[in-house]
Amino acid sequence: MPDLSSLGEEAVVARLTALLQAGPEVLTGPGDDCAVVEGPGRGTVELLKTDCLVCGVHFLPEAVAGKVGWKAVARTLSDFAAMGGWPRHLLVTLAVPASCEMRWVEQLYRGMNKCARAYDCSIVGGETSSLPAGAPVMISVAGTGTARRSQVVLRSGGRPGDLLFVTGRLGGSQRGRHLTFKPRLVEADWLSRNFRLHAMMDLSDGLASDLPRLAAASGCGFLLERDSLPKARGVTTEEALGDGEDYELLLAVSPRSAKRLADEWRKKFPGLPLTLVGALVAEGEQELPGGWDHFAG
Amino acid sequence: MPDLSSLGEEAVVARLTALLQAGPEVLTGPGDDCAVVEGPGRGTVELLKTDCLVCGVHFLPEAVAGKVGWKAVARTLSDFAAMGGWPRHLLVTLAVPASCEMRWVEQLYRGMNKCARAYDCSIVGGETSSLPAGAPVMISVAGTGTARRSQVVLRSGGRPGDLLFVTGRLGGSQRGRHLTFKPRLVEADWLSRNFRLHAMMDLSDGLASDLPRLAAASGCGFLLERDSLPKARGVTTEEALGDGEDYELLLAVSPRSAKRLADEWRKKFPGLPLTLVGALVAEGEQELPGGWDHFAG
Repeated sequence: MPDLSSLGEEAVVARLTALLQAGPEVLTGPGDDCAVVEGPGRGTVELLKTDCLVCGVHFLPEAVAGKVGWKAVARTLSDFAAMGGWPRHLLVTLAVPASCEMRWVEQLYRGMNKCARAYDCSIVGGETSSLPAGAPVMISVAGTGTARRSQVVLRSGGRPGDLLFVTGRLGGSQRGRHLTFKPRLVEADWLSRNFRLHAMMDLSDGLASDLPRLAAASGCGFLLERDSLPKARGVTTEEALGDGEDYELLLAVSPRSAKRLADEWRKKFPGLPLTLVGALVAEGEQELPGGWDHFAG
Repeated sequence: MPDLSSLGEEAVVARLTALLQAGPEVLTGPGDDCAVVEGPGRGTVELLKTDCLVCGVHFLPEAVAGKVGWKAVARTLSDFAAMGGWPRHLLVTLAVPASCEMRWVEQLYRGMNKCARAYDCSIVGGETSSLPAGAPVMISVAGTGTARRSQVVLRSGGRPGDLLFVTGRLGGSQRGRHLTFKPRLVEADWLSRNFRLHAMMDLSDGLASDLPRLAAASGCGFLLERDSLPKARGVTTEEALGDGEDYELLLAVSPRSAKRLADEWRKKFPGLPLTLVGALVAEGEQELPGGWDHFAG
């Protein structure tokens, strides 16, 4: 009987989502950064997302609780950025052993609230559960938000010939940035308002894992310019590709849009690089191993 | 430094929610069965809820996976019933050790999907995370839904003199019913459409814990007619009060409504008892210990 590690995360998720049936109002179900459902108004869709942190997997026991809280919320918000939308309401599930110090949990919540308020979101509810002694703390943050219908960017809209850009710098996030990163909501909102983005996602598992996902969702292959990768300081190309937890945006635009995009970005966000890292091509051209797979042994 | 067990669940939740700030569109934040936010249309509000199951706390390792999945979804749906609303879209967070069998997880998802579809809901997304070996499986289900603004029932609307009713039979849920119960969505929808319910909640921790919560939220005391409790077969009064996991509805209505309610309920739901169990009174009349507190040692 296969276990999850022998199958790997992609196969596990594919098999599980195949078991689900959704109503006709669900425009985009599992598989993109957020789910998209028919929304409040005609020109609006609702976005839904859940994400989680597990102690020992996504943060170390000695991590500062306030930063862990920031990360728990920021990870979920980053997925709204990736869709060209904006989050609004958050729900927190916290599972902790009863021996956990109240002060740690309060700092965690302060960090969550700080990140939520920084992006005009409210934590509106939650659930706490005890855990057996010794079990790792688990924090799950679910969110709802909206996007203009015309502005939603899926992973699947890329076309051969599209140019691929990445925000920020990649790699080395584990040195601290993974706990303090800013979800790219402002940048993604500006991008999707002002440009026709064909596809977008946030980089959580590393470009080496995430780019093939975007390309596959778009029915494309891809070319990667390894030498032009925007690397964080002191990071090798392999680390920039595989470390993960960058929470930067990967986007695909037509070559026609690319020049204007690069020019206007520089003016709008002078402190944050936007780097051309490759292109989508016809299916079957290149593969790139590596990255982080939750269930691969 | 106090830990969670020394404070108890009520105090933990109160201290954590005090740290949160919500926007003005949040009509009811943490503390009720669902959060209530300004909703899609004028006459509609949006409801949000998250809930979770932990192996060893909410189900045993040997429990049938499909039933665990049913319960994970049904618990969240039950909170929408308690508000007089209806759930629509669900997000699942699953944290499991990589050694978990794929078949178990697939059965879990089948059970979740079955419960969702039985109540016209869709699981639209989710997140899977690995856990360190030996850590207990954790399943969190977040949901969004709606209610007519005029139909939302909070815990806080009870008044001295209101009569208290309970659906179904209480106690002994651990023998199996906690995995297979039907969330009282149909009943709650009918109740809140046809009667002016002053307050309502679902019974998850046992009437002995939950009734004081409803009374406190309403600024009332309460009287309980112990002899009239609708007990499950073979269950003592203490067990009916304290076992928990009943997922029945507790509701408060004016004495004027009570007679018509009891008569019409019998016709509408002949197979399900609705029992008068007590009344709300002016604050400070009666207390009732017991029940289940997640963080009490």
